[in-house]
Amino acid sequence: MQESHVLLIDCQDSIGLVHRITGILFRYGVNITQNDEFVDNQRNYFFMRTLFEGQIAAPTLLTELQQELPPTANIRLNPKKKKDIVILATKEHHCLGDLLLRYAYDELDANILAVVSNHNVLQPLVAKFGIPFHYIAAEHKSRHEHEAAIDKALAIYQPEFLVLAKYMRVLTPEFVANYPNRIINIHHSFLPAFIGANPYKKAFERGVKIIGATAHFVNNDLDEGPIIHQDVINVSHRFSAEEMARAGKDVEKIVLAKALKLVFQDRVFIQTNKTIIF
Amino acid sequence: MQESHVLLIDCQDSIGLVHRITGILFRYGVNITQNDEFVDNQRNYFFMRTLFEGQIAAPTLLTELQQELPPTANIRLNPKKKKDIVILATKEHHCLGDLLLRYAYDELDANILAVVSNHNVLQPLVAKFGIPFHYIAAEHKSRHEHEAAIDKALAIYQPEFLVLAKYMRVLTPEFVANYPNRIINIHHSFLPAFIGANPYKKAFERGVKIIGATAHFVNNDLDEGPIIHQDVINVSHRFSAEEMARAGKDVEKIVLAKALKLVFQDRVFIQTNKTIIF
Amino acid sequence: MQESHVLLIDCQDSIGLVHRITGILFRYGVNITQNDEFVDNQRNYFFMRTLFEGQIAAPTLLTELQQELPPTANIRLNPKKKKDIVILATKEHHCLGDLLLRYAYDELDANILAVVSNHNVLQPLVAKFGIPFHYIAAEHKSRHEHEAAIDKALAIYQPEFLVLAKYMRVLTPEFVANYPNRIINIHHSFLPAFIGANPYKKAFERGVKIIGATAHFVNNDLDEGPIIHQDVINVSHRFSAEEMARAGKDVEKIVLAKALKLVFQDRVFIQTNKTIIF
Amino acid sequence: MQESHVLLIDCQDSIGLVHRITGILFRYGVNITQNDEFVDNQRNYFFMRTLFEGQIAAPTLLTELQQELPPTANIRLNPKKKKDIVILATKEHHCLGDLLLRYAYDELDANILAVVSNHNVLQPLVAKFGIPFHYIAAEHKSRHEHEAAIDKALAIYQPEFLVLAKYMRVLTPEFVANYPNRIINIHHSFLPAFIGANPYKKAFERGVKIIGATAHFVNNDLDEGPIIHQDVINVSHRFSAEEMARAGKDVEKIVLAKALKLVFQDRVFIQTNKTIIF
Repeated sequence: MQESHVLLIDCQDSIGLVHRITGILFRYGVNITQNDEFVDNQRNYFFMRTLFEGQIAAPTLLTELQQELPPTANIRLNPKKKKDIVILATKEHHCLGDLLLRYAYDELDANILAVVSNHNVLQPLVAKFGIPFHYIAAEHKSRHEHEAAIDKALAIYQPEFLVLAKYMRVLTPEFVANYPNRIINIHHSFLPAFIGANPYKKAFERGVKIIGATAHFVNNDLDEGPIIHQDVINVSHRFSAEEMARAGKDVEKIVLAKALKLVFQDRVFIQTNKTIIF
Repeated sequence: MQESHVLLIDCQDSIGLVHRITGILFRYGVNITQNDEFVDNQRNYFFMRTLFEGQIAAPTLLTELQQELPPTANIRLNPKKKKDIVILATKEHHCLGDLLLRYAYDELDANILAVVSNHNVLQPLVAKFGIPFHYIAAEHKSRHEHEAAIDKALAIYQPEFLVLAKYMRVLTPEFVANYPNRIINIHHSFLPAFIGANPYKKAFERGVKIIGATAHFVNNDLDEGPIIHQDVINVSHRFSAEEMARAGKDVEKIVLAKALKLVFQDRVFIQTNKTIIF
Repeated sequence: MQESHVLLIDCQDSIGLVHRITGILFRYGVNITQNDEFVDNQRNYFFMRTLFEGQIAAPTLLTELQQELPPTANIRLNPKKKKDIVILATKEHHCLGDLLLRYAYDELDANILAVVSNHNVLQPLVAKFGIPFHYIAAEHKSRHEHEAAIDKALAIYQPEFLVLAKYMRVLTPEFVANYPNRIINIHHSFLPAFIGANPYKKAFERGVKIIGATAHFVNNDLDEGPIIHQDVINVSHRFSAEEMARAGKDVEKIVLAKALKLVFQDRVFIQTNKTIIF
Repeated sequence: MQESHVLLIDCQDSIGLVHRITGILFRYGVNITQNDEFVDNQRNYFFMRTLFEGQIAAPTLLTELQQELPPTANIRLNPKKKKDIVILATKEHHCLGDLLLRYAYDELDANILAVVSNHNVLQPLVAKFGIPFHYIAAEHKSRHEHEAAIDKALAIYQPEFLVLAKYMRVLTPEFVANYPNRIINIHHSFLPAFIGANPYKKAFERGVKIIGATAHFVNNDLDEGPIIHQDVINVSHRFSAEEMARAGKDVEKIVLAKALKLVFQDRVFIQTNKTIIF
């Protein structure tokens, strides 16, 4: 039985990168079982994800790769399998509950360290799964005071990713800056349609025949971060805005879970406002 | 073998409408094989589509229905099976070609009386199918002069519907007003995402994972008319804007054909900016 | 604020049914807000689902309907909103967990009275939600002894529906006969493809590009009961049989939940081996 | 402006293949813009598709690759862009018409050399596009006599691929053996559901809620060849078998066109009964 490894590299493109990288792997006698490489020609940027099997000395291999690649190259060799995450939620249970269930059965590729909420209604659900719940009310606090309280709670856990599982407050640029490309949100519309609040109401009023959900990284522009995954369902004139919202919950939870799987399994690269996914 | 009939009624809602309407049908001894009724509670409006089998005297039945229903009721009894249409196109062939093929094999539920285009590149395609082609250039004409020339061509045909099969010019409100709820457009995006020009370029730049197409009635607000049908396909980082456009063509043509089938088979009601489809 | 009612009728078709039924409703002065009627011409069978608003005297209305309709007509007036169900499961948690979550937040249109399993691994999950769990092992029992033990457990609860949430044993015709059209199963393939055991392994070996799930009523022929709902997802050569199974879980749970919603909201009629769904 | 190249290799897997292959490319100074590699662990087989830009001497490069790879390796370097194909059809026009239109606008990645049919009803359609049409009736001929007549017609054209665009006769193993992995068929069901004749009738009788289409390579087992592409659409109790067939036509034509695009753009590998598609 061989050891399995995964290597992800992104850097400025130049001629010979695949050959040089695989040359280093070849000298270890490992076997590449899957390799995806893509060059963004507009930005002249190189992305590669390689699965290989065999024995390596990881620190030495990393050093060799660094020597061969430009200093700004982003190299991920066998990233930690289970990411440490904290979930932020508000009142809706469907995405959070789905993630808790997956975690309880070790199907999340992540450890849920805690749940933070600006309301306390989800506390009983989180308690069922034995996970710390932090109720941090936003009332009587400025936006910055509220986020400072969240920051304090997060400091205990040092999460690698924050998952916004229907967290219904907009985060400040200052907060987001602390988690560059590490906050994942589920938006309840097929972005860029219906940016902002009340997308189902807007979808109902517009009379669309399809609604959707979008999981994306959060950056400073509302609902404008790099999109990871999207999916849709059919609706009709028979759906009220409330029925659209109810039907949409299932898409939201599945889209978020699928996006998290892609990110946590180290299949996702981010390049400015886009994702490259292998 | 029984005669098959279809009846569509929309009007202000009131108590007893289904009973009164079916009572009239009952007196003819016909059998209702399918009945769809829907009330838009927000607007207190009634929509019903009824299929029935048996012998009727259509003019008498119509009169009886009119007497029973409010004077503003919209009643369609056995609407003409083949709608008379004129197609407007520009340079792209995929939607037009698809419709010509369907028409050639009597699968369009419509007669294509003519094709009008602001370019002449599609003339050879239309000629293959023996359909009149009117090349009406827009160059050196004001918008109104151009539309006046189109109007003149259309006057010969008296079409019931205009189908914009990738007609890449915006129509004026004056032109649209002549065909209330009778112009159908295919927009190459999943509306309301990417309203206006170059939706595939915008989709590429936004990094979406799904693209789509929308068939809608045309009213005075660009891309804001009542939506008839929408569909989507998956894309990825591998798609350039051009590849999205190429892949999108198949969705566009199928969505337009599906929407036309719904309209021409008299399954569609329009209520302000929405459609009710049975 | 008006009372809302729902009426479902299926019976042999004859002329005038819609008129006669809506005539009875009309005499109560109620307003029909949605009406779906369909006649299966092959079997000359009539199906109608009517939503209406207003005051009625339910027992009198029922009697009037019975007098107007053939004696074998199946009439459902305002069926119980929350169906009483028992879930049968084996070892897999994803469908069961999803249903428990929906139930915990009152989104299931049913009361889960108990969970019965031939294994005890799901006991801790069920316990989180405070629902009785009956572990009834199949070892050292004949099939009939095992089912007799299940029957005994079910006798306490008198469930209206049994939901097989990945219950991996085949039920005997005798057992099924006790729950005519009242057992709903989720099969982990796009039926009728891959009937029977190990559908994902078969799908992998066949090299299909799409896999699916099917929710259906259980009758005496394995995987042959009336289909309620189906959905699919894309797969590729990169998916092992195990990865197909993992990806399939999300379709299975959503398809089962959607089917249960349709059944429990009284939108489903059964006619021999098919469903009519409004 | 750089020259773009594509290289496809499949062979028994061994350690160092990616490195050795890309090493040869590196010595030409070309830049790899996209690389997909996959190892089928069950069969220990290696598949790679590489896009690269720069100057090469193709014959020398090929020789170098052959020297580096096992003698049974299958190497495709810049395969001919437009494949030469002959289409076989029977009476249905939708797939054939769609392919003719794409060909007329140079969107097929293939040259349609001729159309062969066992009926003459499609002759006028083919004539519109100026393509030779061979009517080869099957009546009064044994299966082998009929196929011999087809073979004789094909001998003129020497097609690289045969496309069965709703060709409704089963080909003999002898005929198929002449075109190993070079015959592509569209089957009007979601295989392996409804293998064989009349799939829509079977789908109607089974009461499925989704129907589909499957494009596959033809081998000696009916409907059992390697699947290239599949897609589905929703249906309901309202669809008769005929309406399913009509609705299915659009899926059939799009699935066939998509599969042909994949094959003709050299994105498809075949391994026994499966496809690997990059």
